[in-house]
Formats: sequence, structure tokens, C-alpha cells
Amino acid sequence: MSLVLGVLGGGQLGRMLALAAARLGVRTRLYDPDSNACGAQVADLVSAPFDDLSSLHRFCDGLAAATVEFENVPANAVAAVSACIPTFPPKPSIEAAQDRVAERELLMSAGFAVPRFIPVASGSEISAAATEIRLPAILKTRRLGYDGKGQTWLRTQADVALAEKSEFAPSIVDEVVSFQREVSLIAVRGRSGEIRHYAPTENEHRAGILVRSVAPAVGLDPKVLAAARASMEDLMHRLDYVGVLAVEFFDVGGRLLANEMAPRVHNSGHWTMDGAVTCQFENHVRAVLGLPLGSTDLCGAALMLNLIGSTPPLDCMLEMPAARVHLYGKAPRAGRKLGHVNWSGPATELSQASRQLSEALKVAGGDHAR
Amino acid sequence: MSLVLGVLGGGQLGRMLALAAARLGVRTRLYDPDSNACGAQVADLVSAPFDDLSSLHRFCDGLAAATVEFENVPANAVAAVSACIPTFPPKPSIEAAQDRVAERELLMSAGFAVPRFIPVASGSEISAAATEIRLPAILKTRRLGYDGKGQTWLRTQADVALAEKSEFAPSIVDEVVSFQREVSLIAVRGRSGEIRHYAPTENEHRAGILVRSVAPAVGLDPKVLAAARASMEDLMHRLDYVGVLAVEFFDVGGRLLANEMAPRVHNSGHWTMDGAVTCQFENHVRAVLGLPLGSTDLCGAALMLNLIGSTPPLDCMLEMPAARVHLYGKAPRAGRKLGHVNWSGPATELSQASRQLSEALKVAGGDHAR
Repeated sequence: MSLVLGVLGGGQLGRMLALAAARLGVRTRLYDPDSNACGAQVADLVSAPFDDLSSLHRFCDGLAAATVEFENVPANAVAAVSACIPTFPPKPSIEAAQDRVAERELLMSAGFAVPRFIPVASGSEISAAATEIRLPAILKTRRLGYDGKGQTWLRTQADVALAEKSEFAPSIVDEVVSFQREVSLIAVRGRSGEIRHYAPTENEHRAGILVRSVAPAVGLDPKVLAAARASMEDLMHRLDYVGVLAVEFFDVGGRLLANEMAPRVHNSGHWTMDGAVTCQFENHVRAVLGLPLGSTDLCGAALMLNLIGSTPPLDCMLEMPAARVHLYGKAPRAGRKLGHVNWSGPATELSQASRQLSEALKVAGGDHAR
Repeated sequence: MSLVLGVLGGGQLGRMLALAAARLGVRTRLYDPDSNACGAQVADLVSAPFDDLSSLHRFCDGLAAATVEFENVPANAVAAVSACIPTFPPKPSIEAAQDRVAERELLMSAGFAVPRFIPVASGSEISAAATEIRLPAILKTRRLGYDGKGQTWLRTQADVALAEKSEFAPSIVDEVVSFQREVSLIAVRGRSGEIRHYAPTENEHRAGILVRSVAPAVGLDPKVLAAARASMEDLMHRLDYVGVLAVEFFDVGGRLLANEMAPRVHNSGHWTMDGAVTCQFENHVRAVLGLPLGSTDLCGAALMLNLIGSTPPLDCMLEMPAARVHLYGKAPRAGRKLGHVNWSGPATELSQASRQLSEALKVAGGDHAR
């Protein structure tokens, strides 16, 4: 009777998708090898390995559509589910995002400028690639990198020599870009082909992990933004993409270099839960189920602070009148994303709110600000 | 690790409490005799009869606190849970709301004016009571009345004679109040004793069921509102009340007559999900768990339309750009509350939004507007 949406992956993104779906009366069934996945607190869970075909078939039973909450769901699992029921974004979009080379090539084909990079197929190719790109450079594994994982800095010839001798996985040697800031664009495309864009977001990372997002990112040249959005639309149409897509950029003197794409709801879009008319989670659910998209309009300005590793006591956070607290029900662990705090209001109050909220979280014992 | 909140009852109110709790990283465990209770789609469920003590004890295991989603949870179940873990609102508040006589006496003791009523202990007392109150009057069962159930109109002596001969449950004969409109007040009291009020709400019922709420209710004399709020605070302090409390009034020429109280989140407060800084569900969760209360401030004006019996197709509803759709995952059935649609915006746009939304829902096939 209720529509049921399937989500491969049951972490916080699956959880927030399930909460958005529930508001619309849509049930969610998650699939995660971890039977303690935090999404299972608010949705049904099939817990089995991603190569367990019979569990995947059981997962598919009665679903209206399926999606993924992270791009590294093994390709065979996506294939098995896609074969049974409508699955979005389409398999090629997910596969492209699993491989840095395919991803960069796709971004370039849509007209995005990207950092210089050279694929390396064996350790012995690192040295030549590093010479070509010039040091410092970053060695990044082609697969399974996120939150800065799978990345090795090559600052010196000694680093290069060490990398050549270390355990090797197919990688790229990537240009180190001297950027002024990081920016992401998030858009959603419905099954009808309609695309809506969220406000561009400025992001701050520490140790490879997003700590702070602000929307709208100010000072972007409207022509640069328009060109990036045109490329985003080209990319989405080209892939017959359905759902939320995020592209992360380096802003280099006003020019945007596309670094990565995420074929899913994205941490830098969490501000939309309190700062946009329709949040990214609801719009992803709508898109995947073939429902009309909701407005992506911004309500004033928005701020998101990630809670990483540990969280201040809940009562301290709830005493901050301007903060909207979102926690994921996960156990604390170093480097783990446990929740986020949103603020939204007039743009003129953003800097002050950001300072006050960061300070209050720090005083209350938040790890994010350390 | 996560806090766990227990809720006796697993219907749409339990579901929306669970969704609000989940945002704060709080797990919810519902207790409902119906294993298909819609809340179970988003929370854990213990499904057993309310007189099953061993299941009630299992339900209590590890809860931080418990609450109720409806006032007619059998007293023995509330007693069993209260004996194990902190349960709010306190048992006497729930018990008072289960009995129209106790409820009216409590309302009067807090200073509220109430409609004239006479308790009747047997069928043979109906005639004298009806004469005293004067026809037309309404015979209302003392217990288990909601959404207009358990009410019999006494328009003529023939109605009285019929009622005297019908199956009898302890009742009141209640004055028929000629009111201009219905208004509700909703407030939340924390464990610390702090009270916050939501904007007064104007409500429209059809066939005993709420169909439309608007906040703020305009045109209330500030002195009348202040007096009603003072009585509300008196009532809450007197009961050492914790959680959300709703009181429903008849507005008779600007004077407020308290008709009923609901010791729980209330349908006439559903607009707070999109029209207040902190919704009634989150504030109830905060109160029951002893957490600081959130702001009850209104964002402009707010409107809620109930979806009763059947709902328009989801895609039609999501095409209304100004509507925020909330569905409960329940099967359609005549008279059943299946969801609601909220609007919030500038007060000057409220009437137009209300007309447009009602019309659009009607065109799309909503039952609510028939």
C-alpha cells in the first residue's frame, strides 16, 4: 500500500533519506552488511554482504525503486538490484564515480576544467608521473577513496621513492591545486529530465573531512556559476541521471576546477534540511520515485557545522536557540561523522552566527572545532 | 548508547514523535496492540495487548523515559510503565483526560470557564439532566470519546426517550454552545517547570473531525488570551505536567469556554512542523527527556489541512509548490486521518493560500474538502 524505497547502504545518508521519505508516507528498506547501521533505527533493514544475491533479491521484493547512499556500493550489487527494479542514479553514473579516472574523464566531457592528473597502473610509473605533474603532488587511489582516505602526499623525491616501494593500487598522481576555497554545486534531476539547482556552497575541510559549509557561496562570478551549472546539466542529461548529484570544486582565483563528483546526497548539502524549501533528501526521494521535484530555493543564508568524532552533550546543544541539531544515532569514534548543526537566517547575521555557534560547540566539548 | 524514548501507542502521533526524536539521534520504541501500527514503519515496536504485563516490562527495558500518544491508554498500562521508568505527562494528567467529568473539574479548578454539564450515572437520569441543561444538548460518554465518537445529540424529547432506552455508559449531558469558532491553545512544560506557548490556533471541524487549523487565531482579546494562558500554566504547574498539553475552546463572543484537554501532542498543533521554530513533536520529546525546550515562535502565519479518509495522488500534492505534505503510511478508510498538508508564509497571503490549497486538494481528489 505504502510505496517502498530501497536504499543500498544504511549509514547516516540512508537514515536521512528514510526520514525524508517517511514524511511523505514512503517506507524505506535499507541494505547494509552492518546490522547496526544507524539507518536501521528508522527504517527496515536487510543486513547481508553485498555479494549475497539471494538477500539482494529479497531486498528488491516489492520496492517501487532503489537508490544508493554511497558511490562505493559494489558494482555487482548495483547490477543485481538494477536488473530487478528501477534503480537511480543509473549504474554508469555510480560506476564512473567509483573510479577517479572515469570520473575526471566524465567531468571533462561535460566541459568542466579539472586538475592535471596522470593515471598510474603500477608503482614504477609513479616517478615519471610525479615529474610530469611536478612536486608537490598527491597520489590518490582510483577506487574507494573518501574523506581523504587513500591519499598520499608526494612532497619530496623521498616520498616518491617510498610510494614506489609501498603496496600499490591503481591510482592517479594529481596536481596539488593552490585554491582559495572549496565550493560544491548540488543539483537534482527528476525522471522527467527536469533539473533544479541548490545555491552554491562554500566548504571547509580539515584533515580531509568536511567541517563547515556555508550557502550561498558568495563572490562567485555569475558567468562562472552559469557555466558550471550548464556543465552540470550537460553531465546529468548525458547520463540520464536521476536524483541528487554533487560536484566538488577548487576555486582558483575565481575559476572552478572540478575535483570530484558524488552521485548521491552529499554532506555539503546538509544545510538544505533547514535552509532550503525542500531538502536534498526529500528531493532525492522525489526524483528516484518519479515524483515532482520540490523548490530548491534558499531561505536567507545557511550554515552547517559537522560534528565529528564526538558530540557535545545534547542538552548543551539544544540550549543554543539558533541551532538545529541533527544526530545520527552513531557511537562516537575518532574521525566519524556523528551529526551536524544547522543555522539559517538573514545573510547579514551569518558570520556572527557562525562564530557564536562554533564557539558554543567548542565550549560544550565538540570535537569539530579542534 | 543512543537514548531510547518509549511511546505508548504507535499511531500517527507516535510516528511523528519518533521522526522528531530521530532527528536528535534519539531512538523510539512504540507499544501498540496493532502490529501494523503506522509508527512501526519508523521506529521499534513492541506489539502486545495493553494488559500484558510481561510485554510492558520488556517495553520498559533500557528506556530513558516514556510517554503516551493518546490519552486513552488503559490506566493499568500507564501504571505499569510509570512504576518502571520516568513517564510523562504524569499519570494523574492522563487519567483526568480519560474522564470528561474529572477533566472539566480540573479545567474549572485552573480557572477556565467551561460549558454547563451534568454527569449522568444511569439512563434514567438523562431526562432530568436534559431538562436542567435545556434542549438541544449533547449526551457524551465520560470515557473513550474522540473525533466526535461517543456523542449523541439530544434535540427533542424523542431523542431523550431513545437515549434513555439505549445501551448506557456513564456520561455527561452537555450544553450545546453557540460558538463563533473553535480555538486551541498548545503549550509545553519541561521537567524544569519552564513553560512555552505556541500561537493560539483556530480550528474547523466537520462531523466531529478536525479539518483545518490556522495560526495565529486572529482577533482574540489579548486579555482573554493572557488569562487563558495563565490558567494553562496554573493547570500545568498544579499537575507537575511535563510535555505538550492542548486545551480546546469554544469562542463565544470573545469569551473562551474550555471544552476538552489533550495531555499529548495534538492535531491542531501539526502546523508547528512547518510554521514554528521547534515543532510540538520535538518539544514534547525534549520535555519528556528532560532536555531544554526549543523556541515556539511562529514563522509568519500557518495553515494545516487534514487529509481524511482518502488522499489525492502523491504526485498531485507534491506539484503544489507551497504545500508541505505529511503522510502517515496508513491505509485509506472513511473518517481516518491519513495525513496533513501544511502551508506557512506571510499572514497577508494566508487566505489566498488556504483557498488555493483547498481547491487544489479538492481537484486532485482529496476527501477532506467534501
